Amino acid sequence: MNPKHIIESQQFTVPLLMELFERTRQMKKIVARGGTRDYERKIMAALFYQPSTRTRFSFEAAMMRLGGRVLATEKAGAFSSAIPGERLEDTVRVTADNCDVIVLRHNEEGATARAAGVSSVPVINAGEGPGGQHPTQALLDLYTIYDECKTLDGLSVAMVGALGKSRTGRSLTYLLGKFARVRLYFVAPPRMQISPDILAYLDRHNVSYELADGPDDILPRVDVVYQKPIDRTRIHDGEINLAAYNIGADSLARMKRSAIVMHALPRGPEIDPLVDRDPRAAYFRQSRNGLFVRMALLTMLFESE
Amino acid sequence: MNPKHIIESQQFTVPLLMELFERTRQMKKIVARGGTRDYERKIMAALFYQPSTRTRFSFEAAMMRLGGRVLATEKAGAFSSAIPGERLEDTVRVTADNCDVIVLRHNEEGATARAAGVSSVPVINAGEGPGGQHPTQALLDLYTIYDECKTLDGLSVAMVGALGKSRTGRSLTYLLGKFARVRLYFVAPPRMQISPDILAYLDRHNVSYELADGPDDILPRVDVVYQKPIDRTRIHDGEINLAAYNIGADSLARMKRSAIVMHALPRGPEIDPLVDRDPRAAYFRQSRNGLFVRMALLTMLFESE
Amino acid sequence: MNPKHIIESQQFTVPLLMELFERTRQMKKIVARGGTRDYERKIMAALFYQPSTRTRFSFEAAMMRLGGRVLATEKAGAFSSAIPGERLEDTVRVTADNCDVIVLRHNEEGATARAAGVSSVPVINAGEGPGGQHPTQALLDLYTIYDECKTLDGLSVAMVGALGKSRTGRSLTYLLGKFARVRLYFVAPPRMQISPDILAYLDRHNVSYELADGPDDILPRVDVVYQKPIDRTRIHDGEINLAAYNIGADSLARMKRSAIVMHALPRGPEIDPLVDRDPRAAYFRQSRNGLFVRMALLTMLFESE
Repeated sequence: MNPKHIIESQQFTVPLLMELFERTRQMKKIVARGGTRDYERKIMAALFYQPSTRTRFSFEAAMMRLGGRVLATEKAGAFSSAIPGERLEDTVRVTADNCDVIVLRHNEEGATARAAGVSSVPVINAGEGPGGQHPTQALLDLYTIYDECKTLDGLSVAMVGALGKSRTGRSLTYLLGKFARVRLYFVAPPRMQISPDILAYLDRHNVSYELADGPDDILPRVDVVYQKPIDRTRIHDGEINLAAYNIGADSLARMKRSAIVMHALPRGPEIDPLVDRDPRAAYFRQSRNGLFVRMALLTMLFESE
Repeated sequence: MNPKHIIESQQFTVPLLMELFERTRQMKKIVARGGTRDYERKIMAALFYQPSTRTRFSFEAAMMRLGGRVLATEKAGAFSSAIPGERLEDTVRVTADNCDVIVLRHNEEGATARAAGVSSVPVINAGEGPGGQHPTQALLDLYTIYDECKTLDGLSVAMVGALGKSRTGRSLTYLLGKFARVRLYFVAPPRMQISPDILAYLDRHNVSYELADGPDDILPRVDVVYQKPIDRTRIHDGEINLAAYNIGADSLARMKRSAIVMHALPRGPEIDPLVDRDPRAAYFRQSRNGLFVRMALLTMLFESE
Repeated sequence: MNPKHIIESQQFTVPLLMELFERTRQMKKIVARGGTRDYERKIMAALFYQPSTRTRFSFEAAMMRLGGRVLATEKAGAFSSAIPGERLEDTVRVTADNCDVIVLRHNEEGATARAAGVSSVPVINAGEGPGGQHPTQALLDLYTIYDECKTLDGLSVAMVGALGKSRTGRSLTYLLGKFARVRLYFVAPPRMQISPDILAYLDRHNVSYELADGPDDILPRVDVVYQKPIDRTRIHDGEINLAAYNIGADSLARMKRSAIVMHALPRGPEIDPLVDRDPRAAYFRQSRNGLFVRMALLTMLFESE
């Protein structure tokens, strides 16, 4: 059963994930052949209440490689020139009149579910929050791990950096928790640790995890190091030894030869550009996978109509 | 004779309106079949000096459902990185080099006429003012009334809310005045009433109208209630009983069973979301008609070349 | 040999310029026939760190007339919602995943060369600086001179206005210097004169030039008058007699009958709109040429793959 909307990571069962990944591999082949025109009559609306060119470009390119067309705004809050404070539900209804799928980026948790409740076309969560999810990022992250490591069972995955408000960290954790014998390591300065509701979720689902305030002991033990940026503007001088959370040549020397380094890009100082040349640097391949996973999701939604 | 530009409501004769509406019905069928590729070599430029995602999406989707392509800016005032204060005429000439039709949104009355005077391609007024017109909104409003009420002759239409600076109210009034035995009701707080030049226009054309400062007496008598937002930020506390201008379950009980409620969306508190479920709530159908009317207008302009 | 990237004017040899101009003439014919669909599977990303609707529209329309598709942002500095200060190189890599060619507008000199160093797809410089170049503007300017004057050898060209920080003046000067017996006149208020590094370049290449602080003596002697805007906000009252740098009916009377007036548009007061009617006013034809030259450049890059 194809989903009608893409709202949160939890809605993906393992069989649905496997079907998505098979479809993703097909999309990779289609792009290599120059794309398709199968969906040339479809219109996608990118309705962004916050700017994110990275996510928008990835969705738009996915739609275009499928042959489709795109409406886009990064200032959906100024949807009408009328009085402010308009209801998301009305904006979504009006947008749905003009397209076949809505990609929504919103600053409020739960916005996609509200939009899906009134939309005549499928809605995709392209990031909501703070505190919400960014499931398509998590799906492309999970696909990358699967594609690089050839399995999702039994993996050890470290997330390093500011985790507390990380939408993608949250979404990816939900997904990883679905696989057998996964072990998660949350490596963060204490006041930036992953939020307790995620840990409660992992406890409920018997997923094993460990918290650490530095990567030193963790790096040699993991298959995946997922680097998250730390917002330097929120830190007092000398409060945290930020360099300890960065990945450089030293870190590589201590990692498994089969491990990979991931990052949602663009990066700050948390990954030294020297790492780029190491074959374990998976973040450019990860970025490229965004296109294929989003193409696969769009075709799933179009076929569920 | 197809028009060369869409500048103001007054340019539409009744026969031209009827031709437009026939064409609009054809577009509805074309969209139901997935759109056409007849205009795939055409480019529309949305040249917006004010942001309005609602109007822009509607025009862009119209062009895309016709198979065409779109250039767009909502900051046309920053057209060039050169010195500010550039002439609209030059911007329009340069834009016309790159497209087949220009959709212009501008903050000055008369901008579309100036643009049409120098453009090598058709220009459409997508809202200008304050004090100016928004003819395509008025055309989709009129089409909606025609489609819902099956006639335009002899109708009673109430406009409720802040009417003074309403571009769409102005444009729609010009259009309704062309039909036989139409009766207009302007329901507004006194200092937000429709402007005297519109009333003078109606007097000259022998259109009957009535002014009221509340909807109570008017609702049972009309075929159409067109709700306009009131900008709450411009009102002193207690100055106006705003709730009196809102439509809710009570208002519905007092309206004709054949009447309709219209609104340009997105709405503020002037329509209670509970009204949505009543079949007389025509505003979602009205919103959808924008696509078809704009497709019809675009094809008219392309065929007049 | 087709270029892999379009970085600066200097990379164009005279034979490559002639091939580009032949290709430009073909594009003019293709547009007259309604464009082509040869490149319908190609995606262009307009990655603008500064807004310039004029340049963006021209590139986007060029891509669309070739049948291709477009991703666009004019706020590339907000590429990701992550921490600010991201590296251009990462943004370019991520963008390249989603397209077949990148059109880059950047506020730093050298940005295009840096982007080209990491991009998996061709990169076009769509203006960088201050102090940098805007080669596609220079190429369309040069094509216009060639098309209007039927030669580039032996021409006398005056640039009039604020020249010091002019990206296009800089780029065009490099190109004109490649042709035999060209004579350049730089007409500017003293503190807005062309920068010394350009003059050193001309000296090295034995291009003859003259500096002047007013156009009076120059106008009767030249084949091309290229008007540049002067930023009036940077001038003290009475410091400069700005009117002396404007072109009006008087100036036309003193120019050769075969001369042309050029301008990148939109203009300020430096060209009186009365000049528009004179056949020597070449700026509207020049603007139109931007489309054809950019189409030609895009096809060159696509064929060099």
